[in-house]
Amino acid sequence: MVRIGLDMMGGDFAPLEAVKGAAAYLKNNGSNVHVFMIGDEVLINSHLKNYVFPQGSYTIVPTTEVIEMHEHPTKAFKEKQDSSIAVGFNLLATDKIDAFISAGNTGAMMVGALFSIKVIEGISRPTIGAYIPREDGTLGLLLDVGLNADCKPENLNQFAILGSLFAENILNISNPKVSLVNIGEEEGKGNLLAQAAFPLLKENSQINFIGNIEGRDILINKSDVMVCEGFTGNVVLKLAESVYDIVKRRHINDEHFNRFNFEAYGGVPVLGVSKPVIIGHGISEETAFMNMIDIAFRMKKTDFTGKIKESFSSLLA
Amino acid sequence: MVRIGLDMMGGDFAPLEAVKGAAAYLKNNGSNVHVFMIGDEVLINSHLKNYVFPQGSYTIVPTTEVIEMHEHPTKAFKEKQDSSIAVGFNLLATDKIDAFISAGNTGAMMVGALFSIKVIEGISRPTIGAYIPREDGTLGLLLDVGLNADCKPENLNQFAILGSLFAENILNISNPKVSLVNIGEEEGKGNLLAQAAFPLLKENSQINFIGNIEGRDILINKSDVMVCEGFTGNVVLKLAESVYDIVKRRHINDEHFNRFNFEAYGGVPVLGVSKPVIIGHGISEETAFMNMIDIAFRMKKTDFTGKIKESFSSLLA
Repeated sequence: MVRIGLDMMGGDFAPLEAVKGAAAYLKNNGSNVHVFMIGDEVLINSHLKNYVFPQGSYTIVPTTEVIEMHEHPTKAFKEKQDSSIAVGFNLLATDKIDAFISAGNTGAMMVGALFSIKVIEGISRPTIGAYIPREDGTLGLLLDVGLNADCKPENLNQFAILGSLFAENILNISNPKVSLVNIGEEEGKGNLLAQAAFPLLKENSQINFIGNIEGRDILINKSDVMVCEGFTGNVVLKLAESVYDIVKRRHINDEHFNRFNFEAYGGVPVLGVSKPVIIGHGISEETAFMNMIDIAFRMKKTDFTGKIKESFSSLLA
Repeated sequence: MVRIGLDMMGGDFAPLEAVKGAAAYLKNNGSNVHVFMIGDEVLINSHLKNYVFPQGSYTIVPTTEVIEMHEHPTKAFKEKQDSSIAVGFNLLATDKIDAFISAGNTGAMMVGALFSIKVIEGISRPTIGAYIPREDGTLGLLLDVGLNADCKPENLNQFAILGSLFAENILNISNPKVSLVNIGEEEGKGNLLAQAAFPLLKENSQINFIGNIEGRDILINKSDVMVCEGFTGNVVLKLAESVYDIVKRRHINDEHFNRFNFEAYGGVPVLGVSKPVIIGHGISEETAFMNMIDIAFRMKKTDFTGKIKESFSSLLA
């Protein structure tokens, strides 16, 4: 039984969409997953009564505080000890749950991830990626998408390993192709960071590095794991998100562009911390919550963080 | 009479598309513009006979060499003194022509621009931008898009002035809104470069700075001139170009996305050099050449490089 903590107070539609997502997921997987619903008990119950759950598939963990979206992450996390986010991390740190999911304050989630459950030894900077829908129906992974705006070459090399492990274990892509987002195809192209990162990636025996890709290659399936610093990654992700908005505004109904609805995917886990933590988009709805629970379940089943530890311990040895 | 030099040997369809573009442009503007067609005389003439030109609207400048797309820019430029690019810059440097256009080897064009006609005093790094089509039918300008992969804050500040002058004088946008491409809206967000560039832009009295924009704002008309280093700009531009490819592949016919055909716009001038130089896309066709001649014409008519000199001399004073 995988025990998944779900912050019911996070996101723009809390707790309704989290309730709906949990109900939809547990309907078919209630025998494998137990959801700990963390939040305002009265509020949660007022929604729960409208949905059907398998017997004993959830537990409510009552909390009295909420970290709002606009609050200062560190300050709020420290001061609101009975907030759903702080309680969630406390349960995770003390092994009461196996994974923690929230669509709430991203900064507070990062504070919790970095300070309550720690970074895996050997990893300098945890990272967050984003799924990139590709024309053949599969998903690629772009990382970092904003957590690390300034990076060193070694950070990119570590993101490559983390992303590769995620693609292999969670996205089920065998021997995933890893690339460096750059402004030219040949080795030696790029800014100073990309130029310095290329040889590290090339020599990295833990990944299947295929070289540089350019902006035009991001939306096709040239590579499964696309590595860049968080500045470029964030601009690219938000640009791609806006393509979906434009497509909808212009009443274009296309199967591929419909998949640019990034919110539907839910969050990508914080890669590099010692336990599964997933941060969702503030406007996550039912499907996003359902997907996040599923990813958390698969991270636990595949002992994903254990695999990361193994990879990085071999580098430390 | 504006004298425009056109490299007939540059681009994938040389000289045919350059001939067609010149014919299309001169048909209506032969009394204002005289085109100097620089290249292989026999080859040019073999195409010219199929098109009608106003009497005396062009002159062929015969050359015997061509700098190919794959050649090393500096080496080729030095060694091939009778190449169309070298001859074009020689004509520009000696005031025989007012502007020079090529869809040929970009690197060789940059070598020519930097060494034959020089950078305007006070400008640290010239820049190349790209037009960004917006849903309201207008064009925005994104710069730098690849010439300067690593930038200092002061470079971004200068790009802002150059882009603003271009938007105002050539794109006819009055008091253009200038923004910094960033990963958050508030001042203080971003990587070290963006954080340091923001106050410079904010204090710059020569521009109408509206603050940060995010990736999602690039394709809408939130800002007219969008400033970033050339790494992010290049990745963004090529990603946007690929959206057009995907749209075409998926048989989507949409007025807005049809305008993502960046090649149709022709080139954006090299901003910051002392005379009008325009570098076109290698796959430029008739419309692109026509547009480039028009931009060169307007740059000369508005004394665009003179306006840049004026702006930067006031900064030096």
